[in-house]
Amino acid sequence: MPYISLPEGVPGIRGPLSIRPDIAKPLSEFTETLMRGENSLSRGERELIATVVSSLNDCFYCENSHGGVAQHYLQCDIAFIDRVKEDFLSADISDKMKSLLSIAASVQRGGKYVTEAQIEKAKSIGVTDREIHDTVLIAAAFCMFNRYVDGLNTWAPADRSFYIDRAKHAAELGYKMES
Amino acid sequence: MPYISLPEGVPGIRGPLSIRPDIAKPLSEFTETLMRGENSLSRGERELIATVVSSLNDCFYCENSHGGVAQHYLQCDIAFIDRVKEDFLSADISDKMKSLLSIAASVQRGGKYVTEAQIEKAKSIGVTDREIHDTVLIAAAFCMFNRYVDGLNTWAPADRSFYIDRAKHAAELGYKMES
Repeated sequence: MPYISLPEGVPGIRGPLSIRPDIAKPLSEFTETLMRGENSLSRGERELIATVVSSLNDCFYCENSHGGVAQHYLQCDIAFIDRVKEDFLSADISDKMKSLLSIAASVQRGGKYVTEAQIEKAKSIGVTDREIHDTVLIAAAFCMFNRYVDGLNTWAPADRSFYIDRAKHAAELGYKMES
Repeated sequence: MPYISLPEGVPGIRGPLSIRPDIAKPLSEFTETLMRGENSLSRGERELIATVVSSLNDCFYCENSHGGVAQHYLQCDIAFIDRVKEDFLSADISDKMKSLLSIAASVQRGGKYVTEAQIEKAKSIGVTDREIHDTVLIAAAFCMFNRYVDGLNTWAPADRSFYIDRAKHAAELGYKMES
């Protein structure tokens, strides 16, 4: 049961946002820009960062909804996403993504866990300042979203296929609210 | 030294936001609505929640800038804010604020640390659903801001009087960007 009165059957973050359009509007614009705006990181790569951070925060709704969208964009199966969540360093992803996920995982623990060595490593393989910025902010943002979703004890469908089934539609919709 | 190239002398979150107006616009609108919009929680109470969470996350820039604004709104001295940061349960604040800060401190650890008992306690002393929602979201949002600020190793003035001196001006400016 959610800790506050929320409309039934509206999963995860969509519950509290549905009762607070004043908050939902700027927050969805922020998410749309960060996760889907023009970027050298693909939408799939950004969703993968969001998924790994949500998994580290143990947020079932976020790790599955963003994991679903990641597998849709990356055209892989959900088992691949699960392998990245389990151990991204040994997963079949680029060195660049390993480096960015390592920074994101530090941010999940706390901003000060990011080390100069991690940043130098990333830069040495061609990661740009903007990509570092966006990785830190995506990881930080999901530390917010995950806490918002679980701190209010929102409802989420337990069946993982729900998230895979709606991934294509979610990717088409994006994050921006209809006005 | 910040981990990415940022304009010199622009402290904390204002550094990265200054190079990314596309992100700054919706993020500042979100912050303005959450922290300064119409609310049964006063601006000072909301800034106090932000300050305690930032202190728990050990984010020097955020705990001092928001602590400064909190003491301005609450018309107290900074030693009072420091006592609340140190031990809010024994500080001279209302039972309602103790209850909300306790929820915020759980959110700081992670969304799932918020307990039914904390929520029941809050409701039993008249805390509304909306106040619970806003407390959870403020605490979650500062888990993002703190990580954004420290994850990029942004610069912050070390002298605490900087933040107190500019608190009145910061409170007048608010969070919304000039357009």
